Amino acid sequence: MTNETIETMLNHRSIRFFKEETLSDEQIATIVRAAQSASTSSFIQAYSIIGVKDPEKKALLSEYAGNQPYVLKNGHFMIFCADLHRHVLAAEMEDKSAEEILHSLESTEKFIVSVIDASLAAQNAAVAAESMGLGICYIGGIRNELAKVIDLLGCPSHVLPLFGLAIGIPEHTSDLKPRLPYENIYHEESYQPDDDIMKKQLAEYNQIISDYYNSRTAGKRQDRWTQQMVSMLSKRSRMTMDQIVRQQQLMKDERQ
Amino acid sequence: MTNETIETMLNHRSIRFFKEETLSDEQIATIVRAAQSASTSSFIQAYSIIGVKDPEKKALLSEYAGNQPYVLKNGHFMIFCADLHRHVLAAEMEDKSAEEILHSLESTEKFIVSVIDASLAAQNAAVAAESMGLGICYIGGIRNELAKVIDLLGCPSHVLPLFGLAIGIPEHTSDLKPRLPYENIYHEESYQPDDDIMKKQLAEYNQIISDYYNSRTAGKRQDRWTQQMVSMLSKRSRMTMDQIVRQQQLMKDERQ
Repeated sequence: MTNETIETMLNHRSIRFFKEETLSDEQIATIVRAAQSASTSSFIQAYSIIGVKDPEKKALLSEYAGNQPYVLKNGHFMIFCADLHRHVLAAEMEDKSAEEILHSLESTEKFIVSVIDASLAAQNAAVAAESMGLGICYIGGIRNELAKVIDLLGCPSHVLPLFGLAIGIPEHTSDLKPRLPYENIYHEESYQPDDDIMKKQLAEYNQIISDYYNSRTAGKRQDRWTQQMVSMLSKRSRMTMDQIVRQQQLMKDERQ
Repeated sequence: MTNETIETMLNHRSIRFFKEETLSDEQIATIVRAAQSASTSSFIQAYSIIGVKDPEKKALLSEYAGNQPYVLKNGHFMIFCADLHRHVLAAEMEDKSAEEILHSLESTEKFIVSVIDASLAAQNAAVAAESMGLGICYIGGIRNELAKVIDLLGCPSHVLPLFGLAIGIPEHTSDLKPRLPYENIYHEESYQPDDDIMKKQLAEYNQIISDYYNSRTAGKRQDRWTQQMVSMLSKRSRMTMDQIVRQQQLMKDERQ
């Protein structure tokens, strides 16, 4: 049971080396239109996409993202933002005072809605690009220096850049990385209540991931997935996120 | 510039009436595997999918979601959850104390990561289903009664249901709903600094949306988009979200 679209998705791997050939405006338009076709919560369309071509700006973004060269060297770079700014403009256009909507607009609920909307649009963009033979890589690294990114892109209140998407003609290919076991991700009727079953699945997955690295590095690397995760999570990174989100006037609920 | 995959995405419309024919296990597996193939932040795979077939459980979910009949009547119903629970299990497997990772795990940053991961997976599931000739509808309504949904599905700490996805054979089709103007969503080099330009785009869009309703309701409905948004945002809905997220031990940053 498969088709071209499903094959495209199953063949996804992140691409980190692109040919230096820029996307045409027509290619960009096709990708953005696919993004816009994604579902949106109550038609709110609470996201924006900022396309960056200027090499100096891309170099700065690359630096902010931890010197990832593929933020600079690609066919096009887009940044997906949670965006409730145009809804403030909508209130002005309807002659409503901002106060009437801000309590709802600046809630955790609406922030979650905007993150989901931006992500659904981005994944359509990613799949559209891949279906055209292009490669993609999501860049969460822009959140390393998010205040600087907000400043560089001139994002007003109620707009928060979430991640970048590097797109281009692949300069290489890479291996498919095995995902978590199906049963570990997909639960039936209710959340898997038995942690021991989940741990057994994770132990089997550790073996698959160790074998994956082992065979690709001639034995130099044999990390387990659980080890990678614990190593990542024992570092405290981007701990100012809550503060930056609220500086952008999002998720401002008073906590009890 | 188009292909089958892009056509599938451009033809998306939400389907709210499905034939009473359940998806085969093979169809479900194909959809879940497509979901799992989506990008994930640093390989964290911070989401789970709960598939619900039990008609009694679906009836309850339908009630919680504001009596949406298509939550009960469809080919399959899935709930996408932000999930950092298995990463706590990973720490136990690596003989680390939970304390070593919880500060990072329970941060706003990691909550955002898990919402993005769940949404990217969901959009792959949606596109995969549509590429197979099925229809879909996202169900944000489960957040109306999220505490009850968490209880019904037995979600442990660090797991938060975000939205449902109803899938099935379409019983009808509906019209494509025009999206916001391209230039309103897609900005170049930086966020559009001129609110007047954005308002002009929104005014043009209002006309398109009014015409859309007008022609489909023989003049009975002519709402503007800005009017719909302001009407929605002047109601305070799901204002306990911040509290529920923190009850699930997510996004627990101390606020300054």
